[in-house]
Amino acid sequence: MSSFADFQNEIYLNGLGDVLPGLPTDLTRLERLARKRLSPGAHGYVAGSAGTGATARANREAFDRWRIVPRMLRDVTVRDLSVEVLGASLPAPVLLGPVGVLSIVHPDGELAVARAASALNVPMVLSSAASYTIEEVAEAGGEGPRWFQLYWPKDPEIAASFLGRAKAAGYTALVVTLDTPMLGWRPHDLDQAYLPFLRGIGVANYFSDPAFLKGIGGSVGADRSTALLHWAAIFGNPAVTWDDLGFLREHWDGPIVLKGIQHTDDARRAVDAGIDGVIVSNHGGRQVDGAVGALDMLPEVVAAVGERTTVLFDSGIRSGADVVKALALGARAVLVGRPYAYGLGLAGEAGVRHVLRCLMAELDLTMALSGITRPADLTPEFLRGP
Amino acid sequence: MSSFADFQNEIYLNGLGDVLPGLPTDLTRLERLARKRLSPGAHGYVAGSAGTGATARANREAFDRWRIVPRMLRDVTVRDLSVEVLGASLPAPVLLGPVGVLSIVHPDGELAVARAASALNVPMVLSSAASYTIEEVAEAGGEGPRWFQLYWPKDPEIAASFLGRAKAAGYTALVVTLDTPMLGWRPHDLDQAYLPFLRGIGVANYFSDPAFLKGIGGSVGADRSTALLHWAAIFGNPAVTWDDLGFLREHWDGPIVLKGIQHTDDARRAVDAGIDGVIVSNHGGRQVDGAVGALDMLPEVVAAVGERTTVLFDSGIRSGADVVKALALGARAVLVGRPYAYGLGLAGEAGVRHVLRCLMAELDLTMALSGITRPADLTPEFLRGP
Amino acid sequence: MSSFADFQNEIYLNGLGDVLPGLPTDLTRLERLARKRLSPGAHGYVAGSAGTGATARANREAFDRWRIVPRMLRDVTVRDLSVEVLGASLPAPVLLGPVGVLSIVHPDGELAVARAASALNVPMVLSSAASYTIEEVAEAGGEGPRWFQLYWPKDPEIAASFLGRAKAAGYTALVVTLDTPMLGWRPHDLDQAYLPFLRGIGVANYFSDPAFLKGIGGSVGADRSTALLHWAAIFGNPAVTWDDLGFLREHWDGPIVLKGIQHTDDARRAVDAGIDGVIVSNHGGRQVDGAVGALDMLPEVVAAVGERTTVLFDSGIRSGADVVKALALGARAVLVGRPYAYGLGLAGEAGVRHVLRCLMAELDLTMALSGITRPADLTPEFLRGP
Amino acid sequence: MSSFADFQNEIYLNGLGDVLPGLPTDLTRLERLARKRLSPGAHGYVAGSAGTGATARANREAFDRWRIVPRMLRDVTVRDLSVEVLGASLPAPVLLGPVGVLSIVHPDGELAVARAASALNVPMVLSSAASYTIEEVAEAGGEGPRWFQLYWPKDPEIAASFLGRAKAAGYTALVVTLDTPMLGWRPHDLDQAYLPFLRGIGVANYFSDPAFLKGIGGSVGADRSTALLHWAAIFGNPAVTWDDLGFLREHWDGPIVLKGIQHTDDARRAVDAGIDGVIVSNHGGRQVDGAVGALDMLPEVVAAVGERTTVLFDSGIRSGADVVKALALGARAVLVGRPYAYGLGLAGEAGVRHVLRCLMAELDLTMALSGITRPADLTPEFLRGP
Repeated sequence: MSSFADFQNEIYLNGLGDVLPGLPTDLTRLERLARKRLSPGAHGYVAGSAGTGATARANREAFDRWRIVPRMLRDVTVRDLSVEVLGASLPAPVLLGPVGVLSIVHPDGELAVARAASALNVPMVLSSAASYTIEEVAEAGGEGPRWFQLYWPKDPEIAASFLGRAKAAGYTALVVTLDTPMLGWRPHDLDQAYLPFLRGIGVANYFSDPAFLKGIGGSVGADRSTALLHWAAIFGNPAVTWDDLGFLREHWDGPIVLKGIQHTDDARRAVDAGIDGVIVSNHGGRQVDGAVGALDMLPEVVAAVGERTTVLFDSGIRSGADVVKALALGARAVLVGRPYAYGLGLAGEAGVRHVLRCLMAELDLTMALSGITRPADLTPEFLRGP
Repeated sequence: MSSFADFQNEIYLNGLGDVLPGLPTDLTRLERLARKRLSPGAHGYVAGSAGTGATARANREAFDRWRIVPRMLRDVTVRDLSVEVLGASLPAPVLLGPVGVLSIVHPDGELAVARAASALNVPMVLSSAASYTIEEVAEAGGEGPRWFQLYWPKDPEIAASFLGRAKAAGYTALVVTLDTPMLGWRPHDLDQAYLPFLRGIGVANYFSDPAFLKGIGGSVGADRSTALLHWAAIFGNPAVTWDDLGFLREHWDGPIVLKGIQHTDDARRAVDAGIDGVIVSNHGGRQVDGAVGALDMLPEVVAAVGERTTVLFDSGIRSGADVVKALALGARAVLVGRPYAYGLGLAGEAGVRHVLRCLMAELDLTMALSGITRPADLTPEFLRGP
Repeated sequence: MSSFADFQNEIYLNGLGDVLPGLPTDLTRLERLARKRLSPGAHGYVAGSAGTGATARANREAFDRWRIVPRMLRDVTVRDLSVEVLGASLPAPVLLGPVGVLSIVHPDGELAVARAASALNVPMVLSSAASYTIEEVAEAGGEGPRWFQLYWPKDPEIAASFLGRAKAAGYTALVVTLDTPMLGWRPHDLDQAYLPFLRGIGVANYFSDPAFLKGIGGSVGADRSTALLHWAAIFGNPAVTWDDLGFLREHWDGPIVLKGIQHTDDARRAVDAGIDGVIVSNHGGRQVDGAVGALDMLPEVVAAVGERTTVLFDSGIRSGADVVKALALGARAVLVGRPYAYGLGLAGEAGVRHVLRCLMAELDLTMALSGITRPADLTPEFLRGP
Repeated sequence: MSSFADFQNEIYLNGLGDVLPGLPTDLTRLERLARKRLSPGAHGYVAGSAGTGATARANREAFDRWRIVPRMLRDVTVRDLSVEVLGASLPAPVLLGPVGVLSIVHPDGELAVARAASALNVPMVLSSAASYTIEEVAEAGGEGPRWFQLYWPKDPEIAASFLGRAKAAGYTALVVTLDTPMLGWRPHDLDQAYLPFLRGIGVANYFSDPAFLKGIGGSVGADRSTALLHWAAIFGNPAVTWDDLGFLREHWDGPIVLKGIQHTDDARRAVDAGIDGVIVSNHGGRQVDGAVGALDMLPEVVAAVGERTTVLFDSGIRSGADVVKALALGARAVLVGRPYAYGLGLAGEAGVRHVLRCLMAELDLTMALSGITRPADLTPEFLRGP
């Protein structure tokens, strides 16, 4: 039985003692606050999108086109938000999506995120490009569930090493990001000529990896520029194709999920290749400007492969209502990104917890007030579409 | 014969003596004014909506998609705006919808509303969560028509007691709000950790109720916190289902109307259960974020049950043109909410009267200028739709 | 051959001597300027619309939905913008629509308008509610073409007297406004409790009229309030119906045009009644809030009666491109209103001339650059629609 | 193999030495910057559009209606952006469109543009109305590819002379602008009474031309006003029709392209007349207000003549994503205008280079991240449309 909605009561009761929430409870308001409080470089990196930002806007507009039609007089006293995703039981259909270089917004970076996620038993998907290592984050997360995200590097030995380390550190599922064989054109970062990696942030996994170090002669020297240029050379792999998926299976025996699927043909191809799940995502609009809103593609992908595989959704989730819509359109669960990064930047571990609790409380209430008690009951019938 | 339009002449003639209306005559402008003059807590509670406010915006956008096509050269000298609603004759197809805790915007709260409504013979729907009791408001309203709104509490004895008191105090119809088994996620309130009830406002009916008092040992003590927590525990009842409607009929022998209907299936079920009317409403966007605009659902509900029951409309009414549209789409009458709450907050009883007179004058003029003299003549043919 | 476009050259050549146009050449920018320079009462009266302004916005949005598709390599050296409208030859398909009480924006009021119109040979449609009399304006206009607009008063003797005076003063066509049996709900005016008529402005034709004076005992006394209240009592006539059109024909032997037609049934009825023309108009959004954009109804009205009568258009014209669109959708000519009132308010007669010259120069150039040399060649094929 | 994306790395690496890009890398941001830094006259001339600016807005909105659907796991290591256009090989499907009077934004004007274009081997289309002569610009451009744009003058001898000079100076293709037999109504310029030509800017080709000089008695005198008025008299030729195209072929033996085609009938007629290519363009919204967005017409024109001729696109290109969309809809290449004029105004030759490098880097990355390695592979399947 869900108690996520209790957060609402907790806030109101705290108010009697003049204790207010430290952060806005409408998560769409975090971005403006982050702009005021974070450094321009950090804010630009997290909030910025590809090109003119048209894809990021499209992500949000796609949600606006779908509308919930609440149902009345159903017993919604007991809700159970838990879902089974790839063999694991989640307390709610929400994961923390992979976001790299989080120490640019807070010194505790991914460690704080891992602690917050673990406290709520929400899976954190750790980015290859994290500020802390696979092992450090695993330790911070303790008993909490964790997944590992792979930016497939040019050097297969590094890829294999990453997967081995993740497995050893207790990461249970693998998310492979397909949409970033190279970085998109991001004016917020370009105008500041700011790329965290080149300043040594977000390379923790690489600089601690035997396979990577082998490529630069065994160790990162006092002058780290050689190592950083090597990192830049191997980070992305634009040559990877569908034929290379076997490599993943070879080095990973848990569930494998492909992130960045937007076209039904790609979704079908992933399933045909034996992949365990797909994440419909456009990387929050950070890669291709002028692209279609991610949610606009979700119904087609679900129609194409929903019966054969697990479909997750990412890109644009900002509220419990957004989760309801993605689930009603066929996603098994969603990944949230920027909101928790803002929470981290504004209030560290507590900020991440705040974001998760708000999101899940609003999801719980939105479901209840729509007449729904379990994610599985959310079907397209609860929506009006475009 | 309608004389509502006379308010227009009255205003212009007053101007010759340099007397201006105390409040804006475009009711959409009241909200901005209220933001300036009310306390942040009170303004947030009244103006705030669920989540990102998307549903509240959808309510207004839905009106924009329907457009009046005025007809010419019809004799519109004599208009009769009166309508029969559930056996009662209303001077115009307008009711004051239930709004709770009104003393947060003005000390006279619901008493002032009752006086203003009574002066114009417009039915006031008193909220369960009013700042004054069922009996006090009845006394203030005198001969004016009054309806009672029920938030169905967890304790059936309280429910029965409320209905009994309302009947005894001369309330003629019962409006049961379905969409609030619990409060929605309202960032305006949450950010301020402000819930009027927990500060003792809006609980007048409960604290004066024998059945409620029985639950806390007979009386509200000097420290009211026990009573308030009990209130919080029994206020909403998420377990109520369609099967429980018999309870209402058992304790109420007048007309019963269900408020919060949005789906045709729910409308049909209400009618099948012998309910006397439905109010298509999403609680002004205060409960579920990302929901469909209430007016978007009105035509379907009317098509489904309009011939078998009375359909009323609520959520987004701000002008006479809005009333015309809702009526043309099949509503028998509309409920207006926030505008009169702003009027109350800005100018007390006179403010409520101002809002009602503006709304009905504009309705009268809009009908006349569209070639219509009676609400019953308003059909979809007078509109262009989406 | 048109020389309207020469105004463009004239402006640029004046620039060589550092002489700039006194007013903006994009006529949509006049409104903001007028807000700065006119008194709040005058600006509110001219710029204000019914209710929330939704109809006025709809008028402009309707133009946005239609788009010109220019054609190339047609000889457009010689353009002839003249059109035949109801037996008269106009230099361009543009008339000055009826606007009353113009002395609130400039002391010369309708006299200045008449002079500007006459200088360009553009017909001015004089409002019943003008600040100057039928005869004074006729004298100011001299040889220029003039039409008379009737607000059909309650007292038929006044109506007959007005028509007789207009005929005697050389007005050639009659425009009867149908959409104003009473004034709409206009918050801009109501909030200021400002109605020019009640302050003695815009009643020149009434106070100079024998039939009107008879109704108040022969003359307007020193205290004009009796006369003004009588004016208010007889100004509009909501009892007039289709059956009364014979009265007009009885007292007017020139062409009769009905202004305010929005529905095809009304258009057909007008033609069946032997009316010479209709003006598709919603009074610039000043009467019914929430109404359909006037241009949205033009194609249907043209389809219904375009072959049997002259269809003119009014409501929302701000640029030469707007004229092109209205003509392509079937209007024989258009009436422009607020823009020239702003021109008058900002620069008197010269301001009205400026507005007309801009509008016609832009029309001339837009036609030429679209491959069109005569209004009659403008067909729907030159547009892309919604 | 494309290396355009390397500009991204170069920027980030420069950042390590605290060197930032001199101009924004989101080209839509240049306009605001130009407004601050350029003189009002120059800014108005470049940024201004016809009338209310509705066509310029429509150009951008048309791009928003088409959305890219990226594809994953295709080997995009090697991209080749080169295209063959009218017999010439371009490094990327991008040309610098004709923009006149560029010395109003920077003293080096078209010479700087020619140098920047030449450095990147991008064809520059030189405007007839350039600030520098055909010969001067050719010399500045050196080995770089160059096309010549003709404003067809009234005097055929001047036209013939221009074509002869262009041919002699190594311009390989001829672009004939159809949409400007006269200037459109441009309020930004008219309000300032500012036309560069009348101040002697943009007439270099005319004042240096024997045929032109013959018309004014052999030479431009100390008082240049006679020459300028003669220029104004002969600049545009509204009498030219489809029958006159033979004249072009007579005086030009290279490829001929018609610019300003918007209707399929005009496109077909151009092809029937043996023209080598068409440019779908509305002159960036500078000629006809209220016109259809240029991109809205591209698919139809491609469907009508795409198999028989080369279709290029112009009007509204601001980003690499825009280029991808135009190409996917059937354009062989695009012309960019205002962005490079802003670049020139803000930073001279380096500014133009910056704009081109940004545009092509973003194009390169957008293609790669969409799973495309060659322009020819971009088909409508990569887009979601309206």
